[in-house]
Amino acid sequence: MITKEQTNVEAQAIQAKKASKTLSVLTTEEKNKALYAIAEQLETEWQEILKANERDLIKGREKGYEDAFMDRLTLTKERITDFANGLREVAELEDPTGIVQSDWTLDNGLQVQKVTVPLGVIGMIYEARPNVTVDATGLALKSGNAIVLKGGSSALESNKKIVEVMQEGLQDTRIPRDAIQFIASTDRKATNALFTMKEYIDVLIPRGGGSLIQAVVNNATVPVLETGVGNCHIYIDETADVEKAISILINAKTDRPAVCNAAETVIIHENWLNNHKEALVASLEEHGIVVHGDKLAVEAIPGASEAVEKDWAEEYLSKHIAMKVVRDVTEAIEHIEIYGTKHSEAIISEDLQNVDLFMKLVDASALYHNASTRFTDGGALGFGAEIGISTQKLHARGPMGLPALTTIKYQMKGTGQIR
Amino acid sequence: MITKEQTNVEAQAIQAKKASKTLSVLTTEEKNKALYAIAEQLETEWQEILKANERDLIKGREKGYEDAFMDRLTLTKERITDFANGLREVAELEDPTGIVQSDWTLDNGLQVQKVTVPLGVIGMIYEARPNVTVDATGLALKSGNAIVLKGGSSALESNKKIVEVMQEGLQDTRIPRDAIQFIASTDRKATNALFTMKEYIDVLIPRGGGSLIQAVVNNATVPVLETGVGNCHIYIDETADVEKAISILINAKTDRPAVCNAAETVIIHENWLNNHKEALVASLEEHGIVVHGDKLAVEAIPGASEAVEKDWAEEYLSKHIAMKVVRDVTEAIEHIEIYGTKHSEAIISEDLQNVDLFMKLVDASALYHNASTRFTDGGALGFGAEIGISTQKLHARGPMGLPALTTIKYQMKGTGQIR
Repeated sequence: MITKEQTNVEAQAIQAKKASKTLSVLTTEEKNKALYAIAEQLETEWQEILKANERDLIKGREKGYEDAFMDRLTLTKERITDFANGLREVAELEDPTGIVQSDWTLDNGLQVQKVTVPLGVIGMIYEARPNVTVDATGLALKSGNAIVLKGGSSALESNKKIVEVMQEGLQDTRIPRDAIQFIASTDRKATNALFTMKEYIDVLIPRGGGSLIQAVVNNATVPVLETGVGNCHIYIDETADVEKAISILINAKTDRPAVCNAAETVIIHENWLNNHKEALVASLEEHGIVVHGDKLAVEAIPGASEAVEKDWAEEYLSKHIAMKVVRDVTEAIEHIEIYGTKHSEAIISEDLQNVDLFMKLVDASALYHNASTRFTDGGALGFGAEIGISTQKLHARGPMGLPALTTIKYQMKGTGQIR
Repeated sequence: MITKEQTNVEAQAIQAKKASKTLSVLTTEEKNKALYAIAEQLETEWQEILKANERDLIKGREKGYEDAFMDRLTLTKERITDFANGLREVAELEDPTGIVQSDWTLDNGLQVQKVTVPLGVIGMIYEARPNVTVDATGLALKSGNAIVLKGGSSALESNKKIVEVMQEGLQDTRIPRDAIQFIASTDRKATNALFTMKEYIDVLIPRGGGSLIQAVVNNATVPVLETGVGNCHIYIDETADVEKAISILINAKTDRPAVCNAAETVIIHENWLNNHKEALVASLEEHGIVVHGDKLAVEAIPGASEAVEKDWAEEYLSKHIAMKVVRDVTEAIEHIEIYGTKHSEAIISEDLQNVDLFMKLVDASALYHNASTRFTDGGALGFGAEIGISTQKLHARGPMGLPALTTIKYQMKGTGQIR
């Protein structure tokens, strides 16, 4: 049965598709002007946005959301200025479309050009943070794409207002306001309708927890760019330098425990553990890290609890960590093969043969030798801005900047060539 | 309920995954040697392969398959030599893996390399032609991937024997024979089991008719590289040169009507039709082309029947063609937007403004100005070999050569960097 919500969503997707055609032929300057205009409008209407945000906050407090969640939900004048400045930064990035990746001429004179073009319409499905509404819109428009936004219900009022303001910002620009669509319905059927609109939506990007992402991957026929789940491992090899190993482990676990490039499991060579137990234990305690270990780990680390199967797959997103003790690099690689999410994996070692094996055999978007997994991030790697971190292998892998929102076209110029 | 067939398929997929690990670290020379060894083995055992093929042909004749189908199914000594030479050609192509696409150093000294690597395990689901068994295997192995093959039941005996021979060929090479898996069960559940084996299969490539491809796209959670359905249009604009227009139309429709880059609809500007009706009609008749037209087309073309809705979406794969008369390039573009399959679209015109509009607004993998759509082909474009023609936008678009079977890894080398 097709509900009213589904019909509305389809109408919005069609409007987005139409707008994407207009958008796809604009110049870089026209797109940049529009991004600046949106930024300006957000700054002008900051008070309106805070009012809408307040309504979400009231509801959130009623529902008893936890502090960290409420913090991510809360907007301030400064955060809105940050949104606006983020858009201005995106405007300054290189336009990823219209780039001739290669060109050649066939023997018969047919000229072939492989050119980057926008994907068309991006469907963004995300959870609480209202900043995604602005960031994703900026990246989509800059790359010549229209966007259909479906945010989490806890930020509904904030997102709705932000989109309204952004659409207003487009008023005197060449980008049609229909290029930004916001699905306001909280009916799950409305979201699910997006999953199969292959005619109007070119790619779905889910951003949020694992269950959101799996729901999209399992039910969508529209191609998906899978993002973000990171069960990242730090493997401390037999020859690992003790200072590097401990500082990297602590950094990867505690710098920002709630992000996807944080470490969730440490795998330790048994000999290294025997030799450096005291230093390790002292550091873990100092930083309040809670260990769930296998048998040998529990023996070595005071206060560690025994890990159960699900600990090896867990994204704690907190100061908890799983700890496994292994006899060699191969055992570490095998463990990562089973439990890793193909995000970021690190080896701390001075044995270059083991490093080489790890780099070659571990299947993940980013592999680190003697460095923290925390660098898997568009900003840290110098991509300027990021629409998410892809944990899939097709199309884009690792941090996705503007080029991930493009595809290519072969444009052929002939003088009557036939085969 | 899990059937025995599903369990077997899973066991095979696991073997392929394991073999892919060994395969992924081989050198280019080791992979090439293996391809030559397979080629040799196929040529040595050609009689065994023909015997197996004969069993398929007997069954095919019993089932009363049509001639064209039986022809594609029939192997000869020469065709087997062609298979072997195809493998040798693939061996000579550049290795698509291990290529450093970019490298840079962060301010903190962390070295970043973006390197191409194999996808892992390719699941190939295809219909009758036994040549796909060899071609796909060659491309997979060359790019460091293991392959799970699921061919059509009409070529079952031929495919089984070809795979056996190829596996034998691997005996004295560094590629494990498990790197080539063939699903011999004809139970549909066996095929469907492949659709969701995300742990072991990295990409599914369906090759065959539209219904096969749709079944895979709609049911797979493993990422899919969609290939091959081509409802290609030739748009003859008001200013089109009459000789170019007619020769391109005839070529695109009749050179090889059964392939996906053949034209299925011709869209004609009304003024051009009025001016060049006689020449067009004469050519269509000379080449035995059967027209299904809209009202104006039926008036202009003797013997044309009236097109119904489904004609506009039809891949005739024969000498039939749909014909639509339009008032301008915009109407042509809109028609293609509705009925095109994003494969190959051509405009025949001397009006560069219209050409520009067409090139920018039509959403397809390959756009042609004054040339036949028949050039959308890995061989014709100089890619050396092709695993299929992608009609999707993510990962690979248009003819897919070896690079489409790779992904990337970021490899970071540090000296203890933390964030």
